[in-house]
Amino acid sequence: MPTPKAASSRTPDATRRSERSRRAIYDAALALVAEVGYARTTVEGIASRAGVGKQTIYRWWPSKSAVLLDAYLDLTGQAGPEAQAGPEAQAGLEAQAGPEGGEERDEPAEPAEPAGLPDTGDLAADLKAVLRATVDELDDPRFEAPTRALTAEGVIDPELGARFVERLLEPQLRLYVRRLAAARDAGLLRPDADLRVAVELLVGPLTHRWLMRTRPLTHAYADELVDHVLRGIAPR
Amino acid sequence: MPTPKAASSRTPDATRRSERSRRAIYDAALALVAEVGYARTTVEGIASRAGVGKQTIYRWWPSKSAVLLDAYLDLTGQAGPEAQAGPEAQAGLEAQAGPEGGEERDEPAEPAEPAGLPDTGDLAADLKAVLRATVDELDDPRFEAPTRALTAEGVIDPELGARFVERLLEPQLRLYVRRLAAARDAGLLRPDADLRVAVELLVGPLTHRWLMRTRPLTHAYADELVDHVLRGIAPR
Repeated sequence: MPTPKAASSRTPDATRRSERSRRAIYDAALALVAEVGYARTTVEGIASRAGVGKQTIYRWWPSKSAVLLDAYLDLTGQAGPEAQAGPEAQAGLEAQAGPEGGEERDEPAEPAEPAGLPDTGDLAADLKAVLRATVDELDDPRFEAPTRALTAEGVIDPELGARFVERLLEPQLRLYVRRLAAARDAGLLRPDADLRVAVELLVGPLTHRWLMRTRPLTHAYADELVDHVLRGIAPR
Repeated sequence: MPTPKAASSRTPDATRRSERSRRAIYDAALALVAEVGYARTTVEGIASRAGVGKQTIYRWWPSKSAVLLDAYLDLTGQAGPEAQAGPEAQAGLEAQAGPEGGEERDEPAEPAEPAGLPDTGDLAADLKAVLRATVDELDDPRFEAPTRALTAEGVIDPELGARFVERLLEPQLRLYVRRLAAARDAGLLRPDADLRVAVELLVGPLTHRWLMRTRPLTHAYADELVDHVLRGIAPR
């Protein structure tokens, strides 16, 4: 098991090479899972496509699910500080594997809390902007295939599903709740509104329509959801 | 290609044997997809587990997706009239394969419209009863594994997803819309309410919570969804 190196022990060139390798590994992992699905994606396949040795991957990640999770968090811009370029960040990446290696390497890193939702004072406009951006992301082919592959696997594999929910979905839902709480504290929502349920009413139908492909996912739909949900929690 | 036999050409014994075979095939198909997933389920595997010949399956269904769809519709009680026992029904089952065989065999049978939602005059109570029953079904292990396996495959395979949506999900959503329309016509909802969106607001969050396993799926949650959604479409 490799032990994490302090940032100061690495030369700038080594850091650049590591960063290039990680980029190549992320791209290969996402392309592969989109093409062949989760079950047939292997660490060997990712390594071969990325042009690195299998041991390079195992030095940084304990399993294919860990690589895929980090690659996906990087894609969605929700990666933790270890995903930033630079020597300190690189040390952080290696540290993520756990100082002792072994069993502990499979623990997910501390979930990175993404930046807050916009707060212009206009709650409906802010929520619509965020949901519209989600629509655009889900409609973007670069996101769609890996998102579908990983979501499908999470539906049948509780352990993988829980890791994605913990590191990706729940931090997002908390941001919505926080934005709604600010509006409630300003007297714009019913004081007894269940904000968690309200957030699920925004995100649930959007995700459902996209996953099931029942109808097109549009900005107009995002707007309708926001208007409907806010009517349900408006002050009486 | 076999041509469908008229019901009168079959003896009661042959019909009973056919019905037993179909039952065994459905059970085997659902057990297999729950255990090994959609991709690794094969017509051969289903036949072997059901104790029938592969040709028995191909005489009635063109593909594994067709068997699985019918098995699943049967499980959820949404099978069409061909799924009822009896000679006429058996003829219906064979007719489902299409009179000419060939390409047309892959066409889904006419979607069976399930019975309507309860209408006691109390819209909230009726919707809660239906959503609670959905919660119970999703929490039932007999449904959970095949539902997850087939939903996951539909997420990544648009063609399979579309068939399940067309034959299973959309008929259910239409029943909700019809129940809400009756309430709207009685003046209990805003005349301009978008009932389709309202239905997605009921079903989407429930499905999302179950698929992602974010929080427990409970009757209390079903009730909260109904109360929230009805507040959003109450008359002004």
